[in-house]
Amino acid sequence: MFNLIPLTNPVAQVSGFYCSGLCAGLKPDGYDVGFLRSEKPAKVAALFTQNRFQAAPIKHFKKHAVTTTDFLLVNSKNANAMTGESGIADIEEILEALPIKALNPIMSSTGVIGVRLPKEKIKSALAEFNYNSRDTESFARAIMTTDTFPKYIGFEVRVGEEVFHIAGVAKGAGMINPQLATMLCFIVTDAAIPSEDMQELLAKNVEHSFNAISVDGDTSTNDSVFLFANEMAGYYHKEAFDFALGKIMHHLALQIVKDGEGAKKLVAFEVRGAANEQEAKICAKALSNSLLVKTALFGEDPNWGRIASTIGASGVACDEKRLTITFGDVTVYDRGEILFDAETEEKAHKVMQKEEFRIICDLGMGEAGFTAYGCDLGYEYVKINAEYRT
Amino acid sequence: MFNLIPLTNPVAQVSGFYCSGLCAGLKPDGYDVGFLRSEKPAKVAALFTQNRFQAAPIKHFKKHAVTTTDFLLVNSKNANAMTGESGIADIEEILEALPIKALNPIMSSTGVIGVRLPKEKIKSALAEFNYNSRDTESFARAIMTTDTFPKYIGFEVRVGEEVFHIAGVAKGAGMINPQLATMLCFIVTDAAIPSEDMQELLAKNVEHSFNAISVDGDTSTNDSVFLFANEMAGYYHKEAFDFALGKIMHHLALQIVKDGEGAKKLVAFEVRGAANEQEAKICAKALSNSLLVKTALFGEDPNWGRIASTIGASGVACDEKRLTITFGDVTVYDRGEILFDAETEEKAHKVMQKEEFRIICDLGMGEAGFTAYGCDLGYEYVKINAEYRT
Repeated sequence: MFNLIPLTNPVAQVSGFYCSGLCAGLKPDGYDVGFLRSEKPAKVAALFTQNRFQAAPIKHFKKHAVTTTDFLLVNSKNANAMTGESGIADIEEILEALPIKALNPIMSSTGVIGVRLPKEKIKSALAEFNYNSRDTESFARAIMTTDTFPKYIGFEVRVGEEVFHIAGVAKGAGMINPQLATMLCFIVTDAAIPSEDMQELLAKNVEHSFNAISVDGDTSTNDSVFLFANEMAGYYHKEAFDFALGKIMHHLALQIVKDGEGAKKLVAFEVRGAANEQEAKICAKALSNSLLVKTALFGEDPNWGRIASTIGASGVACDEKRLTITFGDVTVYDRGEILFDAETEEKAHKVMQKEEFRIICDLGMGEAGFTAYGCDLGYEYVKINAEYRT
Repeated sequence: MFNLIPLTNPVAQVSGFYCSGLCAGLKPDGYDVGFLRSEKPAKVAALFTQNRFQAAPIKHFKKHAVTTTDFLLVNSKNANAMTGESGIADIEEILEALPIKALNPIMSSTGVIGVRLPKEKIKSALAEFNYNSRDTESFARAIMTTDTFPKYIGFEVRVGEEVFHIAGVAKGAGMINPQLATMLCFIVTDAAIPSEDMQELLAKNVEHSFNAISVDGDTSTNDSVFLFANEMAGYYHKEAFDFALGKIMHHLALQIVKDGEGAKKLVAFEVRGAANEQEAKICAKALSNSLLVKTALFGEDPNWGRIASTIGASGVACDEKRLTITFGDVTVYDRGEILFDAETEEKAHKVMQKEEFRIICDLGMGEAGFTAYGCDLGYEYVKINAEYRT
């Protein structure tokens, strides 16, 4: 009953939204400061990291109890985390230097923890922006850290004669973990969505998107998902909005895993037959987080014993005689029977040579399932993270 | 009141114990099958992995409810895990081929999961052993997998005129995790220790030794700690035994971390000032397990922000204004104040260049503390684990 048409310049095609990025010298080269603004004040809903040391931008947002805003400033290379009251004061000082009028302006940062923001560089950037620019690409690039490509997507949603738009931009790479929303994601819409639906649908859709992915199991101090709604389309349809929001969040989440630091493979860990929902999730996330599994993915080695061992170590109800393990469509272990001969091994290895594949673990204990998404871990990950600050 | 004198050939110098290893062809080269036996039946206490898929040797031990034994057979390269009833039957068949009389013989295995034991090769080995050999070195080598050196230690314990002996052998490397006893460890003594003390002291001393270390956060299917006591010294002193057992387990645990796959550094994560014991442990283990912390150790990068972020993500009670972070004797963050200037960074970097050092995190929330031991994670870890089965 509703149609989704992909947008070519996602944020820019959502009524009333403007965005852009520029090079302010925080990175040696590349975009590092950006803005997102709305012609009309936008209602905002947000989900933040569960890390106990939330970064200054999150504290600033909470301090001002922001429910409506028309301006967001972003930067990369510096997380403004562990910077205490000074970190919040820095944000306030920077936002006061905005050359345009703004209602409850907010900020979002990503990068190194424990270093004060380079205020003067960011303030200089504010004087240089073209605030009527609609450049999704440079905005998306301004939040990239070790990401290798910008991540955005958007749809025009048609319900009969009615239309609204929704688009999202995200950054990910390292520190992506399955504990909670763990990256930066900004979603904008012109739909006339009620405030209560914003928080409800954001929380609902995060479960199978950002909460189902893992790069290295760490939860950063800055991770945030924002939804801004300026209501300029004058129309809203809950089911259609929920569907489009889910599509956007799922797509961005998988893009983040694909672009995990040094990752070459996107693997879906599909757990079936768990005793209950919670155990299905624990088990799927344990698999996507296991170092031994991740290095086996990197080696394209169908070492199903590590899969079994990780399931056993996750603490969920399981039984050797009920478990089935399948790589793609190749079953290697079937309820007590090891099917792993040379021929099966070669077939499973072939599955693992693909860039995207599925590992299905049926626990045979009940009816619950959950799919978590992970990636391989190779030399590049070590290289990137051993030398991150340099 | 008691003295510990190190033993030069640990197991061999404990009255009545014999051991040896040989090459049975399970590995391309090197020792891979070994035995440990006692002249007189030895009482046995054991701690096993918390993995739900316990390997066949553990099931075999439990099936026969072994409390006294005089013979242990070990092998590496094959874990005999996920092999079901057949795996247990294989052990029984092998042990029946023993050319010497044995009381409740048991087995312990380590290696690849999900492959049946090469029974004939192991049975051939049984015919070749010199059962009067006392060769700790070859026995310790027979349980090595990706370990780069054998691990053993022992003491003669003198209490006044009385004497008893205690010695231990262990293997570790990958799959070392802080959830529970997570490697193979065999401890032998000639002390006349009561059965109830055996289990009590083993459980007590595992907490700050094998349960305080981490290589990659995975818990294997086979991990076991055994204590065998043949009482041949005819003497026992609880306090002295507890002390010596603690020394042995702590030493072997640190040897395992030092020999973590590809590891070059042994790092003590000392958490102080936690709200309670449990949170101190959760926090210390989170630090020793964090991929981002481990790769920073590898890069010798005093990226204290990752330490802070990991503490915050661990979920324990903490506060930016109370936390202190110190590398060796260099404090980089002191209760809200960032002390991380160029000079401090250089000093902290110097600390991290050492092979062994301490990172102290005082949470400032209470009086509890715990020290966990971890290592760096570099290219070698990835190489070893991507190519493990080949």
